[in-house]
Amino acid sequence: MPEHQHNLSETVALLTRTPAVLDALLRGQPAIWTQCNEGEGTWSASDVLGHLIEGERTDWLPRAKMILESGESETFKPFDRLAQMRKPNTGTVDQLLDEFASLRSSNLRALAALNLQSEDLSLCGQHPTFGTVTLSQLLATWAMHDLTHLHQLTRILASQYRETVGPWSRFLGVMHCNGHSTD
Amino acid sequence: MPEHQHNLSETVALLTRTPAVLDALLRGQPAIWTQCNEGEGTWSASDVLGHLIEGERTDWLPRAKMILESGESETFKPFDRLAQMRKPNTGTVDQLLDEFASLRSSNLRALAALNLQSEDLSLCGQHPTFGTVTLSQLLATWAMHDLTHLHQLTRILASQYRETVGPWSRFLGVMHCNGHSTD
Repeated sequence: MPEHQHNLSETVALLTRTPAVLDALLRGQPAIWTQCNEGEGTWSASDVLGHLIEGERTDWLPRAKMILESGESETFKPFDRLAQMRKPNTGTVDQLLDEFASLRSSNLRALAALNLQSEDLSLCGQHPTFGTVTLSQLLATWAMHDLTHLHQLTRILASQYRETVGPWSRFLGVMHCNGHSTD
Repeated sequence: MPEHQHNLSETVALLTRTPAVLDALLRGQPAIWTQCNEGEGTWSASDVLGHLIEGERTDWLPRAKMILESGESETFKPFDRLAQMRKPNTGTVDQLLDEFASLRSSNLRALAALNLQSEDLSLCGQHPTFGTVTLSQLLATWAMHDLTHLHQLTRILASQYRETVGPWSRFLGVMHCNGHSTD
């Protein structure tokens, strides 16, 4: 299967920015923007931060290292996508932002230390659902997972003002996002 | 019609952050994240910035002032949602970010100078499509319009990696956003 051209520096450029984007959006904001969710069983901004922190700890870089160390001989541990929902309120939003920024920064330093070459991006690992995946796909997904949750965050925030905007909700695309972005 | 409870300081808290959010996401980024779009006739990050700048110049605050000065006796000028597409490349992304931040900051100072009281939020204006709208709805929409375009931006960026992520696209909500957010 031909690999889509992947320039790792472009991926890292996005991964580097996410903590500052979330910080600008959420730090010190009133509770309506940080604690509210879209209804019973859905995620708040705090939950999204908890999920991103879990990803930094257990998903992206550990899987990249597993590919480099074991190739396809080991299967990735399934990512616990709801870990943060079982241990809620483990910190204020500002503490969660700090924790995410610190983990991301340390993971990007560790990634740089791997000194990956373009041929390494074709190395393969075993995903518990997809089967064979490449290091390229994993690292690209790390950045796109950030974007998915930023996409979700804008929807969570906007849902608080669904009535407040009155008739304008018709023209506001974010009000019509159908919840495809919960993960 | 009962007005949904609207705390203007919460709206301003969001409006204040948008320039920094966009700056963190886009300043100095490689062209793949700032110049690419989702295909013929769709918007790039630069186009989104141009549209937000046009809104600061001609839409939100001018309409708020019209409500305060003329109530429903004057109808808002329709917002030219494609203005930025007719004058593309009017600046680098970094220049557009600066221009947006400067206009937003000056508009928020002007909004504060209006010293709006909660009863003012019920004042009405005439929208060319919706008819009667309130100042409350207009100001809430200003902030939600930011979120709609941040929602759209994450989708534009993610669309560049649709193939690069391989099988993970299935799990990435932002890859399945159906283009409801072009405005």
